[in-house]
Amino acid sequence: MTFELGDNQYGKAETRLVRVDRGGERHRVTDLNVTTTLAGDLTATHLTGDNAGVLPTDTQKNTVYAFARDGVGEIEAFALRLAKHFVDRNAQIHRARVKVEQYGWEPIPATGHSFSRAAGTRTASVTYDGTTAWVVSGVQDLTVMNTTGSEFHGFPRDRYTTLQETSDRILATAVTAHWRHSGSGRVDWGPSFTGARDRLLTAFAATYSLSLQQTLYSMGQHVLSGDEGLAEVRLSLPNKHHFLVDLEPFGLDNPNEVYFAADRPYGLIEGTVKRSEAPDPGLAWW
Amino acid sequence: MTFELGDNQYGKAETRLVRVDRGGERHRVTDLNVTTTLAGDLTATHLTGDNAGVLPTDTQKNTVYAFARDGVGEIEAFALRLAKHFVDRNAQIHRARVKVEQYGWEPIPATGHSFSRAAGTRTASVTYDGTTAWVVSGVQDLTVMNTTGSEFHGFPRDRYTTLQETSDRILATAVTAHWRHSGSGRVDWGPSFTGARDRLLTAFAATYSLSLQQTLYSMGQHVLSGDEGLAEVRLSLPNKHHFLVDLEPFGLDNPNEVYFAADRPYGLIEGTVKRSEAPDPGLAWW
Amino acid sequence: MTFELGDNQYGKAETRLVRVDRGGERHRVTDLNVTTTLAGDLTATHLTGDNAGVLPTDTQKNTVYAFARDGVGEIEAFALRLAKHFVDRNAQIHRARVKVEQYGWEPIPATGHSFSRAAGTRTASVTYDGTTAWVVSGVQDLTVMNTTGSEFHGFPRDRYTTLQETSDRILATAVTAHWRHSGSGRVDWGPSFTGARDRLLTAFAATYSLSLQQTLYSMGQHVLSGDEGLAEVRLSLPNKHHFLVDLEPFGLDNPNEVYFAADRPYGLIEGTVKRSEAPDPGLAWW
Amino acid sequence: MTFELGDNQYGKAETRLVRVDRGGERHRVTDLNVTTTLAGDLTATHLTGDNAGVLPTDTQKNTVYAFARDGVGEIEAFALRLAKHFVDRNAQIHRARVKVEQYGWEPIPATGHSFSRAAGTRTASVTYDGTTAWVVSGVQDLTVMNTTGSEFHGFPRDRYTTLQETSDRILATAVTAHWRHSGSGRVDWGPSFTGARDRLLTAFAATYSLSLQQTLYSMGQHVLSGDEGLAEVRLSLPNKHHFLVDLEPFGLDNPNEVYFAADRPYGLIEGTVKRSEAPDPGLAWW
Repeated sequence: MTFELGDNQYGKAETRLVRVDRGGERHRVTDLNVTTTLAGDLTATHLTGDNAGVLPTDTQKNTVYAFARDGVGEIEAFALRLAKHFVDRNAQIHRARVKVEQYGWEPIPATGHSFSRAAGTRTASVTYDGTTAWVVSGVQDLTVMNTTGSEFHGFPRDRYTTLQETSDRILATAVTAHWRHSGSGRVDWGPSFTGARDRLLTAFAATYSLSLQQTLYSMGQHVLSGDEGLAEVRLSLPNKHHFLVDLEPFGLDNPNEVYFAADRPYGLIEGTVKRSEAPDPGLAWW
Repeated sequence: MTFELGDNQYGKAETRLVRVDRGGERHRVTDLNVTTTLAGDLTATHLTGDNAGVLPTDTQKNTVYAFARDGVGEIEAFALRLAKHFVDRNAQIHRARVKVEQYGWEPIPATGHSFSRAAGTRTASVTYDGTTAWVVSGVQDLTVMNTTGSEFHGFPRDRYTTLQETSDRILATAVTAHWRHSGSGRVDWGPSFTGARDRLLTAFAATYSLSLQQTLYSMGQHVLSGDEGLAEVRLSLPNKHHFLVDLEPFGLDNPNEVYFAADRPYGLIEGTVKRSEAPDPGLAWW
Repeated sequence: MTFELGDNQYGKAETRLVRVDRGGERHRVTDLNVTTTLAGDLTATHLTGDNAGVLPTDTQKNTVYAFARDGVGEIEAFALRLAKHFVDRNAQIHRARVKVEQYGWEPIPATGHSFSRAAGTRTASVTYDGTTAWVVSGVQDLTVMNTTGSEFHGFPRDRYTTLQETSDRILATAVTAHWRHSGSGRVDWGPSFTGARDRLLTAFAATYSLSLQQTLYSMGQHVLSGDEGLAEVRLSLPNKHHFLVDLEPFGLDNPNEVYFAADRPYGLIEGTVKRSEAPDPGLAWW
Repeated sequence: MTFELGDNQYGKAETRLVRVDRGGERHRVTDLNVTTTLAGDLTATHLTGDNAGVLPTDTQKNTVYAFARDGVGEIEAFALRLAKHFVDRNAQIHRARVKVEQYGWEPIPATGHSFSRAAGTRTASVTYDGTTAWVVSGVQDLTVMNTTGSEFHGFPRDRYTTLQETSDRILATAVTAHWRHSGSGRVDWGPSFTGARDRLLTAFAATYSLSLQQTLYSMGQHVLSGDEGLAEVRLSLPNKHHFLVDLEPFGLDNPNEVYFAADRPYGLIEGTVKRSEAPDPGLAWW
């Protein structure tokens, strides 16, 4: 009976980095949560504890901070710099993945150095194998709601079905979306992100929805159609159920006005929209 | 050896209520988390399990939903309606406290019925004893940062002091603030809230700070000075530490640019600012 | 129009301290989360930013770690040492409160130095004003369930009541309990805690319950009756509702077997049980 | 420019099910969090909102509750029943994955119907494609610590390395482990789980560790070696750093006694151990 090491990776998770750019009239705040993950020839440490190939996770953290000294810029570019460094400078490391979450801050008008936290998180993930870099941008914690324009009916019924069909329901979700760029060479990461995020919002709002899947597909299609540099997009949409409260026991009607917002369970709809001609990268890319 | 029942109360916590107002060009969403708490002559249920005086928490929840049928309006007014109902309709209930959290939603421009969640939470708490109603408005989860304009020095040093004095640090906090109204009869709850929230932000930004306590006092003073209907304000301000990263080991300087945002431990500064002439309500009011 | 500073305090929250005692056959782990809070003559820093009286929260953290060098022992004793230090060594500090959470670790039998985290958290809070020290011990995150032996009926009904009476329900709660010691001089903090915790569990289990309030009172009474050094106990008991699922639509009965465990809303029952002869300490002590 | 639907799935997440078995001297509690996920011929709902193939997530929830009526048993068996039902009864569904988390409850001795929550969570995941069922068992939230017996040195140093080598550190982690069974036909799910969990604990404790990777491999190997029905195991081990506090500024030494338990960042070590002869299932199985 013998055993062997399978897939493995390691890294430093959730390095919290805040950079302040103080040039210009108004300061700029870049508030990040960075996770670095390395894979490669790491058998020795698993089998014998020989760490000759294990770049410490502490060093990975230090590298994140040191690289920020020269400026961070767009998070896709920052992740690319880091991923290439780890692979190109460490022969035993064959793949690096750098994930970045960016928290938004809005100016408080009173000064040039005051900010308040905005909702929503921008994300980037770069995977680099020494030759190719895959860049994925995204958004999470973007919670949205349509108070009408959503139906759900025509579904199959079996012994366990009790759900009523509806032609007018609240549709609410917390969007997690990741879109993969065709290449890693573009420079307009910032406008590309803003555009994709805006199209997500607009498509969510403007799609008359017969199912959350239909909304998902529409959102994905709009993300891709507005940016030729994007190959595919993956969305994960929890259906944040809002149930109409039965007020009849109190002698009251409820013309789609009073709802109970439920926590659990929730529907979870996940799907991918791809540009038809896009080649398959052959990796779990989100 | 005898025992007796001391202070006690009970209620329904975190009833999640969403109301949609569908009149007008644009729908309006009111998204609330409501907690009701009752106190009074409740000895019997504690000592013998006689529930003749225990209005069920399930009934309290139902009442919240039923009252929303007529509209919610400003959360202070909604909490007043509920608190008065519970005390006035139940002889054995001598005090009701109704707490409401309101989550903000911003319109997505594409339609009249689409929204995205905004940061920050508005709160209201009403305490009613059958005669007087105390109304407290507030805000929580309002995270703010000044990237300069904050010093900290002149503090006492003892055997355990290692902190360096600083004349330029990041000051960041997540504001929880509660302000008590002098009476319960005002009708401008909405503008009053918006004004107080704006003054909190402006005071945080505009105060050149020698300590977070000084910023706290300034914030409180500005909240009160802009609204004669407010008697006192209590603030709870975690000091969200941002530590300058030492880049010297990497041959780099760090001119106040690269920071580590720490989670724990954190400073916690709490204080009250009162209008000097304001009478003491004699209750733990926040 | 003048303003003044009201109640205020400040401190360092959530200093995470782990101490390992390596003497003896088996190591001992003390895993704590310590919050220190000071109050006193702190007007200057609020009004002018003069920090001459502000013992930095960073120094408070350092003190926690330094005091742990001599051993921690029972958390009540550790909190007493810290609270007395802060008040006795700083003339401007008139009151210190030190709160400690202790996380339990159970030995893994294989070695003398291996442990796994157990459920439940032990707590202590000491308030010291230069003369008197109030010591409160407690427990939190102690989740318990009775699968029978709980009824709820005889409650008042009004227009908004829909709840059915029940003579057999699941009763589940996550216990938060704080009990105040009559003095601060006892030395058996450890056995006192273990005894109180055991009596809480036994009373919860053994009380045939007509209301969660009745269970609460019984739990409080048992805590006090087993330890003459305890003056009062305060309990906060969320009613973690378990609703019987209606399986009738699927042609199935449900003889009290299949439940939905709800998150929100939840009942929240809070109460105090006091030794009748116990003097009132005149402070919000929990 | 054309787009197409890529990988997609949907289901009901986090259905909270509690079942009480009341036969016998002592009641038995089965406390579950069930997530069902279906994939198949779902293009229509994405493209046109035609829901003829969309078994509602509400129906999936109902099915979970209805199936519990006949008893739950071991969670692997329960997940198998559900997964097979969804695929076998719905022609358009080609793959079901059912994930179950089980929360442990320990008896309170006083009665036969009283319980307290224990630490740690047991998990099961079944993936069924109409022909084959892959069964994965596991554990999460199992937090463990060795107070000695852990070194870390011999790692590469670069410009960004500041970490000191150590020959005695605390090693602490929160184990997430998933092990795949070779087949789906075994009946000893319960003893198999208990054995694997015990071997994880023993291997963690008994491995003298030169790296967390070495501990991971040892844990994986022990899980497999004790149960011939297991093909591979995947572990995800956050390195919960405990940093020795520098007490020298206070004139104190610190002989490996006083530590700061850090939250973020943390190392994250992930790896797979496989039986060498085990065929590759060709799916992301954990």
